[in-house]
Amino acid sequence: MNKRMIIYILGKMLGVEGVVLLIPAFVSLLYWEKSGFSFLIVSAILGIVFLIFGRKRPKSTRIYGKESFAIVALAWLLWSLFGALPFVISGSIPNYVDAFFETVSGFTTTGSTILQEIESLPMGINFWRCLTHWIGGMGVLVFVLMITSLDDENSMPLMRAEMPGPEADKLVPKARNTAAILYGMYFVLTAVEVVLLMFGGMNLYDALIHSFSTAGTGGFNNRNTSVAFYDSAYIDGVITVFMILFGVNFNLYFLLLLKDWKSVLKNEELRAYLGVIAASVTVITINILSIYENVFHAFRYAAFQVASIITTTGFYTADYELWPELSKAILLVIMFIGACAGSTGGGIKVCRFVILLKSIRQEIHKILHPNAVTVVKLNGKKVGQDTLRGINVYFAAYVFILAASVLIVSIDNFDFATSFSGVLTTINNVGPGISKVGPVENFHMFSPLSKIVFSFDMLVGRLEIIPFLLLLSPALWRKKF
Amino acid sequence: MNKRMIIYILGKMLGVEGVVLLIPAFVSLLYWEKSGFSFLIVSAILGIVFLIFGRKRPKSTRIYGKESFAIVALAWLLWSLFGALPFVISGSIPNYVDAFFETVSGFTTTGSTILQEIESLPMGINFWRCLTHWIGGMGVLVFVLMITSLDDENSMPLMRAEMPGPEADKLVPKARNTAAILYGMYFVLTAVEVVLLMFGGMNLYDALIHSFSTAGTGGFNNRNTSVAFYDSAYIDGVITVFMILFGVNFNLYFLLLLKDWKSVLKNEELRAYLGVIAASVTVITINILSIYENVFHAFRYAAFQVASIITTTGFYTADYELWPELSKAILLVIMFIGACAGSTGGGIKVCRFVILLKSIRQEIHKILHPNAVTVVKLNGKKVGQDTLRGINVYFAAYVFILAASVLIVSIDNFDFATSFSGVLTTINNVGPGISKVGPVENFHMFSPLSKIVFSFDMLVGRLEIIPFLLLLSPALWRKKF
Repeated sequence: MNKRMIIYILGKMLGVEGVVLLIPAFVSLLYWEKSGFSFLIVSAILGIVFLIFGRKRPKSTRIYGKESFAIVALAWLLWSLFGALPFVISGSIPNYVDAFFETVSGFTTTGSTILQEIESLPMGINFWRCLTHWIGGMGVLVFVLMITSLDDENSMPLMRAEMPGPEADKLVPKARNTAAILYGMYFVLTAVEVVLLMFGGMNLYDALIHSFSTAGTGGFNNRNTSVAFYDSAYIDGVITVFMILFGVNFNLYFLLLLKDWKSVLKNEELRAYLGVIAASVTVITINILSIYENVFHAFRYAAFQVASIITTTGFYTADYELWPELSKAILLVIMFIGACAGSTGGGIKVCRFVILLKSIRQEIHKILHPNAVTVVKLNGKKVGQDTLRGINVYFAAYVFILAASVLIVSIDNFDFATSFSGVLTTINNVGPGISKVGPVENFHMFSPLSKIVFSFDMLVGRLEIIPFLLLLSPALWRKKF
Repeated sequence: MNKRMIIYILGKMLGVEGVVLLIPAFVSLLYWEKSGFSFLIVSAILGIVFLIFGRKRPKSTRIYGKESFAIVALAWLLWSLFGALPFVISGSIPNYVDAFFETVSGFTTTGSTILQEIESLPMGINFWRCLTHWIGGMGVLVFVLMITSLDDENSMPLMRAEMPGPEADKLVPKARNTAAILYGMYFVLTAVEVVLLMFGGMNLYDALIHSFSTAGTGGFNNRNTSVAFYDSAYIDGVITVFMILFGVNFNLYFLLLLKDWKSVLKNEELRAYLGVIAASVTVITINILSIYENVFHAFRYAAFQVASIITTTGFYTADYELWPELSKAILLVIMFIGACAGSTGGGIKVCRFVILLKSIRQEIHKILHPNAVTVVKLNGKKVGQDTLRGINVYFAAYVFILAASVLIVSIDNFDFATSFSGVLTTINNVGPGISKVGPVENFHMFSPLSKIVFSFDMLVGRLEIIPFLLLLSPALWRKKF
């Protein structure tokens, strides 16, 4: 285990966070807010951390899979631990556990909040809250990789450890270039949404906040009633479309840039993703028809909520707690499914389900034709045994963590739907759940223990379990390598 | 596909059911009940079915895995379809869908009921209801194998297809002898319980009913308030112990007969099973202490409910709906886990979880030592790739069926805890759930569609998914083999 290299990279990463904190400091300055100092103080602390740990490159720079997972897990933890400080120092969220929950929720693009009132937050503080979504969406490490230099041989395992989905591909041979292309496309899509939202009457600040949140599929914004505040079919429509767009694998956008339309149209995950969205919106529209004046209204609210939940964004324009149970159950099921691998969305990921369904079909085929050799294919390519095993382990670990978390959170004695959907919404990085954590509610009433469990679930969900399991494994630290 | 052989075996099996129905007919006769005729009528119908389909052996008698799965799935379906008739003919359950639900619940040893009042049922009818648990517990096919003759080469795949757990072993070389040994031990354990319950003051009829239900880990009995009716610490204790005993893999009892104590004590599934029971009872006892007068009372009710749920029996002595959420959540989690493979209990089975946990550990080990060759072992033996793949496919299919069922049941618009725990309790063959399907409630209020979904879930859960998936697969019927 190359501990020196781990410390060196983490020191560098915290330095980057110190620089990033200057952005909300600048926003605070624009609005002449005192809270700007809280960003500068933390930025200074991180600068010192960087100077101590992140400057001197160790002799041996080689890192392997295990170090990559450890770095990714620790990086997310440290970014959240330090990123929470401005909330505490500025007094916006005086309790550190609450501030940590909020910051983890931001970086992991969950969007669950402990705040009961967000419209009175200082502009700089809320800007930082939503900016965490934007950076966390594409990845903290991908972000750092883009702006600092690491050997290319070390970068790829790091990117792989952070990227959601069962397999991570480089777009181009160099990891740094891959990171730059990803952020480039991400930046352009975000910018387009900002412009479109301003056309709908939003000011620049609101448009930025909402675009950060859509892009990261996060869910934070600056309105107590979320997007329902604007009550505009145009804004609902723009955000619905962009939520769906940000739930798509970014590799497909790269293929579009290369004009490879055929591969995109034939992509099985994309087809399944759009198919699930279409089916869910159709059934819910019919199911809620009696609640809304007409089909158009029902469709508008169904589409927004479905897009928000399946992409794990967590915005809302309607209180689906008041919808019939079938609609609520559909939302819980698509909360499980989540968005596409390689997108900014959370959840288990559509392609994992596609592969699992195919392996069930393969098993039946094996019974019918015991001597036939069968393989599971995705997009015409064979899915390797390692990937299959990885998906199964992920799935099993997911269920274990889900069950254990529900047990601990149940100590707070809220009803089953609250505990269960609370855990489900955090581990899948969605945001709201049902019952007492429904869309118009929040997480403030839970005990500190539950809040720490939820924070753990958000991190575990965002990094797809393995990095954190490894971090908690005594074998990682005990052994000399 | 050897269709003639499938029809021949099914004809034979229905003949056996016709003979079995003479037992409740005899009980009815003892009590001079008119409902006795309903058994005789159905028995006669099944006799005719046997004479038409079950007498002439086809020329080709060879069957393979696919035929075995089809036979098992169809046998359970047909036994339930015909077994429901006496309820309808006698007028005890006039609606056929309800009667089918009740019979499936009996054979699959689920114990969920649509009856709101059971104490007024005729003695013969209720005897049949509980006898289905006893036969279904060890297996309809195992029962038939014991009393009729089939070539040994055909019997083992049939037993394997019906036996719960990821791997089925023969105890002795001949399948028919294995079936006889299993039923022998099953019979002795049941008889001991009958005697012990009679010592506690039960009459023979009650003792038989309760022992059938405990042995099959079913849950039906003849009291509206289940075992709470007797309000006896002795009876609670006897049933608690026997529920736990019937949740143990019967192979272990065979090892005990061979005086192989060491293998039993070292059995990893048994240890995990007892460990989960001990942990659950301890936490729940502490959690419910404030509700009961003293530790002894809290322990008595905690132990009974835990044993009842983890073995998927479904008896109750306390309304756990009134317990704190943590206790309820623990009961839901152990409902998932279920009993040991090769027992009469349902659920996902302890050993599947043990193997899944080990494969998670193996995955972490692989990351730490990329070049090491690792295998998952259970009881010192390597778990084969086929078994691992089978478990993963089972797990995935389980989650898909669970989600699809919850969606359909949600159309009835009951709260999430009701729909979710209703599906969970039926697919795991437990009996009661929480909220509106809690222990003192029942399933009468669901729509016929939901009742059919629940019946499907009970059958799918009992036969561990694959046989029914195969039955629903068009490829099974389309292809010429």
